[in-house]
Amino acid sequence: MTQYKVPVIPGDGIGPEIVAEGMKVIDAAGEKFGFDVDWIDYPHGADHYLETGELIGEDTLKELSDYSTIYLGSIGDPRIAPGVLEKGILLAARFYFDQYINLRPIKLLEGVWTPIKDKTPKDIDFTVVRENTEDFYIGIGGRSKKGTSKEMLEVSRSLYSAKFDLDIETDSEEIAYQIGMISKEGTRRVIEYAFDLAEKRDKHVASVDKANVLSDIYGLWREEFENVAATHPDVETDFNYVDAITMWFVKNPDWFDVVVTPNMFGDIITDLGAMIQGGLGLAPGGNINPEGTSMFEPIHGSAPKYKGQNKVNPIATIWAGSMLIDQLGENEAAASIVSAIEQNIMENNVKTYDMGGSAKTSDVGDDIARIILEE
Amino acid sequence: MTQYKVPVIPGDGIGPEIVAEGMKVIDAAGEKFGFDVDWIDYPHGADHYLETGELIGEDTLKELSDYSTIYLGSIGDPRIAPGVLEKGILLAARFYFDQYINLRPIKLLEGVWTPIKDKTPKDIDFTVVRENTEDFYIGIGGRSKKGTSKEMLEVSRSLYSAKFDLDIETDSEEIAYQIGMISKEGTRRVIEYAFDLAEKRDKHVASVDKANVLSDIYGLWREEFENVAATHPDVETDFNYVDAITMWFVKNPDWFDVVVTPNMFGDIITDLGAMIQGGLGLAPGGNINPEGTSMFEPIHGSAPKYKGQNKVNPIATIWAGSMLIDQLGENEAAASIVSAIEQNIMENNVKTYDMGGSAKTSDVGDDIARIILEE
Ligand SMILES: CC(C)[C@H](C(=O)O)[C@@H](O)C(=O)O
Ligand SMILES: CC(C)[C@H](C(=O)O)[C@@H](O)C(=O)O
Repeated sequence: MTQYKVPVIPGDGIGPEIVAEGMKVIDAAGEKFGFDVDWIDYPHGADHYLETGELIGEDTLKELSDYSTIYLGSIGDPRIAPGVLEKGILLAARFYFDQYINLRPIKLLEGVWTPIKDKTPKDIDFTVVRENTEDFYIGIGGRSKKGTSKEMLEVSRSLYSAKFDLDIETDSEEIAYQIGMISKEGTRRVIEYAFDLAEKRDKHVASVDKANVLSDIYGLWREEFENVAATHPDVETDFNYVDAITMWFVKNPDWFDVVVTPNMFGDIITDLGAMIQGGLGLAPGGNINPEGTSMFEPIHGSAPKYKGQNKVNPIATIWAGSMLIDQLGENEAAASIVSAIEQNIMENNVKTYDMGGSAKTSDVGDDIARIILEE
Repeated sequence: MTQYKVPVIPGDGIGPEIVAEGMKVIDAAGEKFGFDVDWIDYPHGADHYLETGELIGEDTLKELSDYSTIYLGSIGDPRIAPGVLEKGILLAARFYFDQYINLRPIKLLEGVWTPIKDKTPKDIDFTVVRENTEDFYIGIGGRSKKGTSKEMLEVSRSLYSAKFDLDIETDSEEIAYQIGMISKEGTRRVIEYAFDLAEKRDKHVASVDKANVLSDIYGLWREEFENVAATHPDVETDFNYVDAITMWFVKNPDWFDVVVTPNMFGDIITDLGAMIQGGLGLAPGGNINPEGTSMFEPIHGSAPKYKGQNKVNPIATIWAGSMLIDQLGENEAAASIVSAIEQNIMENNVKTYDMGGSAKTSDVGDDIARIILEE
């Protein structure tokens, strides 16, 4: 029997509850398909931070880099200022492991209600490939304090180990600034991944940018997209301004096959994508480094107000678990999880409140595990 | 009879066709309500640029600053690289006139089809107040050329007349960067406007940011929002991450009354807003400087492929015209244009193709003008 070791970071809020269902389902798939997972628990999140002052240390990250996959619940806690945990744990991991692909399937499953009129599962079935290590997520920015703005501001080390000094020549008012950077190579590799994916799908890649206004950063993105496109002459392409693509996601989701996007725009459009596929309770994501350590998570947050109530929908996390074992090479087992999710939605009335049911988080996990074992 | 002078920039693509209908309707409203508009035509746009090399000169801008309103069609042409006309004309005007409020009503009119399920006009009726002169729209950024990236990059003069030098310490690969800046005062004034507007509406202001990741720039935004909110204790408020608000626009548009947003996020969410109110053919916008020169336009682009076909929907532009005369103080006439639009949609079958009809652009303008004169 194949044996895997997979680190788990349940995280904050509803994280532990939903990850428990994900592990339950993967264990059932292992029983059926002949593999076994040894889950290694990591305590990182709000409580651990409040107790120890540690977000996630470089030692831990180094240790985690021995594994090819990590299972993540969700990060975020109202006791802590916005961004501290998200940047200190979630983004730290994405950057440390150089998980340059954030893969987010937007797929309306059979039997799921979408808020969009006249759309069926065949209309909503595409994948967003979000760049995950550059752009406005590099954390470089600053504030000049009122009256002291002539002083030289030390700006944090960038992704590129460059150091930026900004000499603010006004002293009339406080300002804040933020820098985004992308590299040619960082852009190339994610676009290449998107084209490779499209080759296996419907051979269409849509690019997202705002090159008409943020011309410097997205000028490079567009150029690189054209360079990569030239090496895939059989794949159709188009450019979409980020503002316009939000309209097409709602009006013409059937236009899309693979969508490749810079990091921040990817953040925005995948939440919208989650909504058209039936809501955040159903939207999984993978942070992928094809040669290194990848991390799988629901794209939703930690929903603190539902914590401990055994109430929320675990399907996003279970689906992320399917992506995780797919990455491990258990493709048949991975596919069986997705069909079991579809069967759970179609055939039983074991649904959480967000899908119009009254089942508990754990009931849904139980039902999906049962389907896998029985089919 | 009150006499107004209003400069018109019909612009590119469908611009001239739709602006002609807007002027027709305003002229009808003038006939009815006792004012007269002297339209002053400006040729700026793609053809003018290709003929003369001029986008829009400082002389022209200075001349235009004598007027309190400008009527704009649309800017953009496939013969010219993305961004050249948009930045050289549209953004140049927004910045030159310091039109710090971009006001975009999101209102589902009676009789209009929305792609969102189960929503009626009472569910979709809010206003987005988009900051319009700062953020990532300031045009500061650059590229380091492969192999030459150690050289000092001269970065264009900023809004703040500061000069930034970025010393890129890598020479391994090409990079591109973009800088966004906001000022405390620039943030305060637009948020103040949003609260004043909410005082006259349902007393709720939703703020948009991404303070958990772009913490420097949107940290200041959030602080300033809280400062202004403290002076309006009767107005309810909440914070929305930009990714999440795209979901709520689709799922719970009834949550919103006034939404205040930084520039770039405002660009994105108002296109989505246009879609939920029935499409770009119906979405007007005003670039407002309450003490200076304001500029009114449909939020859609120049749709070059429809140029000259007398086919597209002029309602967004006609509605923008209503906002224009409202700004001039003709409030009753402005309201009559909006009711005439609603009546046109409800009562006749004079609709363009995007609304399921087969009327021409000019038929719709004629019908709305007729309604104003007859009612
Ligand atoms: C929590 C936050 C930092 C994160 C992001 O912005 O990437 C989330 O919104 C996501 O999309 O995974
Ligand atoms: C054309 C473009 C520069 C403009 C913008 O990004 O502001 C447009 O999308 C808008 O929303 O008015």
